[in-house]
Amino acid sequence: MSSTANAAPPRRLRAGIVGGGRGAFIGAVHRIAAELDGQAQVVAGALSSDPQVARESAAEWFLARSYASYEEMAAAEAADTNGIDFVIIATPNHLHSPVARAFLEADIHVVCDKPLALTVAEGEELVRLVEGGPTLFALTHPYTGYPAVRQAREMVQGGRLGDLRLCLIEYTQDWLMEPLERRGNRQATWRMDPARAGLGGSVADIGTHAANLLEYVTDRPIEAVCADLTSFVAGRLLDDDAHLLLRLAGGAKGTLVCSQIACGEENRLSLRIYGSQAGLEWHQEEPNTLLFKPAGRPWERWRTGHGYMGAAARAATRLPPGHPEGYLEAFANIYRAFMQDVRRVASGQPPLRDYPGVHEGLRGLRFIAQAVASSRAGSLWQSL
Amino acid sequence: MSSTANAAPPRRLRAGIVGGGRGAFIGAVHRIAAELDGQAQVVAGALSSDPQVARESAAEWFLARSYASYEEMAAAEAADTNGIDFVIIATPNHLHSPVARAFLEADIHVVCDKPLALTVAEGEELVRLVEGGPTLFALTHPYTGYPAVRQAREMVQGGRLGDLRLCLIEYTQDWLMEPLERRGNRQATWRMDPARAGLGGSVADIGTHAANLLEYVTDRPIEAVCADLTSFVAGRLLDDDAHLLLRLAGGAKGTLVCSQIACGEENRLSLRIYGSQAGLEWHQEEPNTLLFKPAGRPWERWRTGHGYMGAAARAATRLPPGHPEGYLEAFANIYRAFMQDVRRVASGQPPLRDYPGVHEGLRGLRFIAQAVASSRAGSLWQSL
Amino acid sequence: MSSTANAAPPRRLRAGIVGGGRGAFIGAVHRIAAELDGQAQVVAGALSSDPQVARESAAEWFLARSYASYEEMAAAEAADTNGIDFVIIATPNHLHSPVARAFLEADIHVVCDKPLALTVAEGEELVRLVEGGPTLFALTHPYTGYPAVRQAREMVQGGRLGDLRLCLIEYTQDWLMEPLERRGNRQATWRMDPARAGLGGSVADIGTHAANLLEYVTDRPIEAVCADLTSFVAGRLLDDDAHLLLRLAGGAKGTLVCSQIACGEENRLSLRIYGSQAGLEWHQEEPNTLLFKPAGRPWERWRTGHGYMGAAARAATRLPPGHPEGYLEAFANIYRAFMQDVRRVASGQPPLRDYPGVHEGLRGLRFIAQAVASSRAGSLWQSL
Amino acid sequence: MSSTANAAPPRRLRAGIVGGGRGAFIGAVHRIAAELDGQAQVVAGALSSDPQVARESAAEWFLARSYASYEEMAAAEAADTNGIDFVIIATPNHLHSPVARAFLEADIHVVCDKPLALTVAEGEELVRLVEGGPTLFALTHPYTGYPAVRQAREMVQGGRLGDLRLCLIEYTQDWLMEPLERRGNRQATWRMDPARAGLGGSVADIGTHAANLLEYVTDRPIEAVCADLTSFVAGRLLDDDAHLLLRLAGGAKGTLVCSQIACGEENRLSLRIYGSQAGLEWHQEEPNTLLFKPAGRPWERWRTGHGYMGAAARAATRLPPGHPEGYLEAFANIYRAFMQDVRRVASGQPPLRDYPGVHEGLRGLRFIAQAVASSRAGSLWQSL
Repeated sequence: MSSTANAAPPRRLRAGIVGGGRGAFIGAVHRIAAELDGQAQVVAGALSSDPQVARESAAEWFLARSYASYEEMAAAEAADTNGIDFVIIATPNHLHSPVARAFLEADIHVVCDKPLALTVAEGEELVRLVEGGPTLFALTHPYTGYPAVRQAREMVQGGRLGDLRLCLIEYTQDWLMEPLERRGNRQATWRMDPARAGLGGSVADIGTHAANLLEYVTDRPIEAVCADLTSFVAGRLLDDDAHLLLRLAGGAKGTLVCSQIACGEENRLSLRIYGSQAGLEWHQEEPNTLLFKPAGRPWERWRTGHGYMGAAARAATRLPPGHPEGYLEAFANIYRAFMQDVRRVASGQPPLRDYPGVHEGLRGLRFIAQAVASSRAGSLWQSL
Repeated sequence: MSSTANAAPPRRLRAGIVGGGRGAFIGAVHRIAAELDGQAQVVAGALSSDPQVARESAAEWFLARSYASYEEMAAAEAADTNGIDFVIIATPNHLHSPVARAFLEADIHVVCDKPLALTVAEGEELVRLVEGGPTLFALTHPYTGYPAVRQAREMVQGGRLGDLRLCLIEYTQDWLMEPLERRGNRQATWRMDPARAGLGGSVADIGTHAANLLEYVTDRPIEAVCADLTSFVAGRLLDDDAHLLLRLAGGAKGTLVCSQIACGEENRLSLRIYGSQAGLEWHQEEPNTLLFKPAGRPWERWRTGHGYMGAAARAATRLPPGHPEGYLEAFANIYRAFMQDVRRVASGQPPLRDYPGVHEGLRGLRFIAQAVASSRAGSLWQSL
Repeated sequence: MSSTANAAPPRRLRAGIVGGGRGAFIGAVHRIAAELDGQAQVVAGALSSDPQVARESAAEWFLARSYASYEEMAAAEAADTNGIDFVIIATPNHLHSPVARAFLEADIHVVCDKPLALTVAEGEELVRLVEGGPTLFALTHPYTGYPAVRQAREMVQGGRLGDLRLCLIEYTQDWLMEPLERRGNRQATWRMDPARAGLGGSVADIGTHAANLLEYVTDRPIEAVCADLTSFVAGRLLDDDAHLLLRLAGGAKGTLVCSQIACGEENRLSLRIYGSQAGLEWHQEEPNTLLFKPAGRPWERWRTGHGYMGAAARAATRLPPGHPEGYLEAFANIYRAFMQDVRRVASGQPPLRDYPGVHEGLRGLRFIAQAVASSRAGSLWQSL
Repeated sequence: MSSTANAAPPRRLRAGIVGGGRGAFIGAVHRIAAELDGQAQVVAGALSSDPQVARESAAEWFLARSYASYEEMAAAEAADTNGIDFVIIATPNHLHSPVARAFLEADIHVVCDKPLALTVAEGEELVRLVEGGPTLFALTHPYTGYPAVRQAREMVQGGRLGDLRLCLIEYTQDWLMEPLERRGNRQATWRMDPARAGLGGSVADIGTHAANLLEYVTDRPIEAVCADLTSFVAGRLLDDDAHLLLRLAGGAKGTLVCSQIACGEENRLSLRIYGSQAGLEWHQEEPNTLLFKPAGRPWERWRTGHGYMGAAARAATRLPPGHPEGYLEAFANIYRAFMQDVRRVASGQPPLRDYPGVHEGLRGLRFIAQAVASSRAGSLWQSL
């Protein structure tokens, strides 16, 4: 659908990956998303802290170069004239910052999974590091990559909704409704370990996606939160459920619900925005549809792939209407914009930065910190 | 479907109505609901404070007796051996209590629209009056009359959900997104006038329905609320939008959103409950479907009219599966249970009280008062 | 919503009913539908050929007069100055014609369930009888009473779809997927008995509803059918499943599927029409929504109760948007238009006939006959 | 999710592509689908009959080798020790057979778009050629690659539906509702040109997908069709709309509707199957959901990604529940199985052939031919 300009270099970009070896769901997602448009190939990796897993995973992926550690990888790739153009960080949260730092300092562009870091302070350091240097940094909030989400943002920015009043966002799952972290599930174990996950449980793992999505679509920051966090599963150290009242810049209000114990929910990320002239509704589990609700008229069902969609949505769509695109394609849209910047920078052009970066990452860390603070204070409003 | 026993008297019951004349949507709803099952006929009314409207409305409905005031009606009907068996109160809120008192004191059973009264104190007086006497009192929270809602309650009570954890309830509309109360709309005018509506706007008009529905289905009282109420339309004296964090008896938490400025929404009352073993989801705008979400298994789509539904749902259903029943039928289910009690009492049997009454009304008034109090205090938790 | 003029007589009309006693689902439906708007009361009946059932059913409904036979009822009511204004025929098919004839000859207006009669010849006689006399005749195809169906018809008539091309109509159920007629189910027994049901099984019982709905909405007659009828349940004498290719006047084509063995379906009557400029879609099981699909633009979700709906839909709606109306309300819309005509005729005005009548009934009988003929001939096209 | 064994060779496979250059939607789909799982890379192509388009398209895709003709490509790649492992044919229909022949004769495995060829005779020749040789042949009916479709097939095969009775399949679009073939649209031009498309229009372009999907899921061949084909757009040489009555082996019946003039429809491929014990429903536009309808119990909503899904569906799923997978992923599943066979054959193992091949292609050609023959004969039944 869209024409991806092939600026220099006239070849697929070379990518490396840290983390994401066998058993880690998100590693394969990053690889597919990075390679989907034929603009890159993952050629190197430090796929696991377990050397055998790292080696075998690299073989499964036909990687040219497998490393035992990210430090070794950063050094070797930086020294190689055919080294990687960018690195993908797909580790647990506590490693985001040190790994990012290692590659940034080696002048290798970075794509990092969210949240940005363990703490606000750590995040602020990364902001300074990225802002002070020439390397690019993308944070993978993939839900902003959906065409219908981009259409929603364009409609809000274009004033189609009038003044924003009411925002309802929800991200519910059920995969942590049992204490998997005490039953050997690797994904659950580090996510419910404050040393590796940080201050927040559900509020960090999925709440940050929801907050980012809301700010992306409305183009307005969340100014304050009033939160009630809970660990419903006995013995759990971090929250598995959170309800927040929200106040956004410009006067809109709303609620944010995130939960990982909502029995029967898969990955129910849903957004509704109501303004003085129209409303919007979007559901991640049926991502190619955007409901537009103009005052006094029938709802409209906007669908990706149509000529009536705006430029941003059209550029993010690969297929004709009715050919469903999903999570991997949305994820690949983050990569596509990032890789366009890698090529621009390589050919001396300024980057466009049409993807989440360190600033969005820092906002996410503040969101986590203030949600936790509000809840601990008995649901007092906290400013972000 | 269900067998309605025809106890004494062996005739259709005679009903009267106060308020609800021409132009008042809810009057016709009460008439249809009361008469739907052939168990009653509305024969008398004081349909409007405007004598001409009252007279003409009575003629349109072929009423045998039309009164100029509810006081006159209560006196005359009480004195008539063929007088009404019960009265329906379909006036603005501030008249609920005086009208109810007049008929209760005339020993005439009462069906009253919600909320019960203007204030908690006024509601407490009505509770005392009803508890001290022989007359029956029903409060029309019609959403509890839907078969799928009764099925949900039965499933929760039967332990099908396990321990309740998370409750999400929403009631959104858009009919007050413009300042209709300053444009001559009668429905809006009294609803946004504190003297006639009470302390709450949306929180009273629809929030009480939501709170009642949640307590009905979960069989657990809301213990505390943390609220943020807003009047988005400039100059409005009462809230048109409210967001609440909830804590229920037994440890469940949740959110309640009610709004009358949610552009594009009609009457979106939706309920979700998540327990340790299953979840439930119901949408009033598609009322004949109940989604049941057992842990680790596919969602089930329970539909009214089937033999697999429980006794309560079956008794509330009139048609085979796939023949949609709606709001009027749900409303009629409140009347059906009430009229069954009218017949029981007439034949010396104790009433079953399988419908909302003064206690539910009083809880609603407390809900309004504490939501308003919490919001005024900057969203501090308030106990109910 | 709509203003029903109360022409003479200034009282509720008096109705009688033949058939429909205890155990017959459709009898109660007729009673509720006839009485819903407060324009009529059922006061007399010959509710069953079983005298005890007739008597007890009449008592349950508080009928003033119960008869042992329809002949007796027609005679007595015609002679009574306070006799019924119209009769409702809710018997098995083979009695439609004789009962209708009895009341027509007694100058009592008739509402008759579909199909009109057992055979085309019998139907033609009824047409002659009705056309030659002053009495009114309504045939209850209730699905044409839904507001969204009326909106669809108005849109087609107004040219919103352009030239009609493709029509897809379906009516599927599963209640006959087992041989209930051999297990004592009364409803199934007469419906699968050619002597009482006629030539067609599913094609008569539900196929005629589908055909009528299609012709109503498109305002174009079905000109030819190419059919394949099947009795999937062994030993069944009439079809329980039928698939038809259709050709409509004006060049549109389509398919009609009706089945009573479609496991899991309740009462899935769905209609889609595609023209050169727009398409339409409606589902009876979610009846308050009409999907409008203009070429090159997003689908629109038209909903009953809104001001943007056309006059026909608005007149058929009783409640504000989002308050679901269902099958009984649609059924009541047929009655409302019929009773308006009863009042008009009583006050000397010509009838409006805005409801299905004998001509629609005769078309239904031809549809059955030609569907059966086509199937027997190996799916040769048959003209209607 | 699934573990793709990496048999020999221990590298990504090398693929070539014929057709599919710039402007051809399906070329990019094949490239993405072939490469999605990191098992192959497209390295060579004869992307267009226009030399400049071919050259520029190859550069955009960073292809190592670009050819001016498929004949040249087949010869050169066969002679190159680092030549392609398989070729992808993404040309208009009339070239499928000659291109396939060229590569088969060069001992290069083939993936070919559908339909297999222009005529049944041409298809039969390809069957003989493939059956007589060692090369693999896949036909891309990608809809059979959806996990929910595989689940449906497994449920039917496992007897969960009982005896099949009723099959309703539909594939509707609207992209040919205007005469695009006379307005310079390349996709439409060859599809409505009998010399390049063959006997059928919609019945070939999408009807074959529907027929294949139905036979795949039911595991039963369509035995006879009774068809009515139409060209609604004036001057069109091939059908743009087709309705068929179906008879399947084993006694099931049904309808197949395909249309490319169904205004407002995108790519609505929907399948319903009803048996004596349960029904199934699937919609391609919401592909991750499969509705299962057991007799007398609530519908179940089976969703991809869950542990309760069967082995076939699980193996076809890459993401956890609620992370939508779409058309590209389904398409990639055809490639994945095919490439697994390429590796098996390379390492001396027999192929598994778990993807559509020449036999499915030949059935498709017969379906087209007999649908056209039936329609021309006035909708007489034709055996396949």
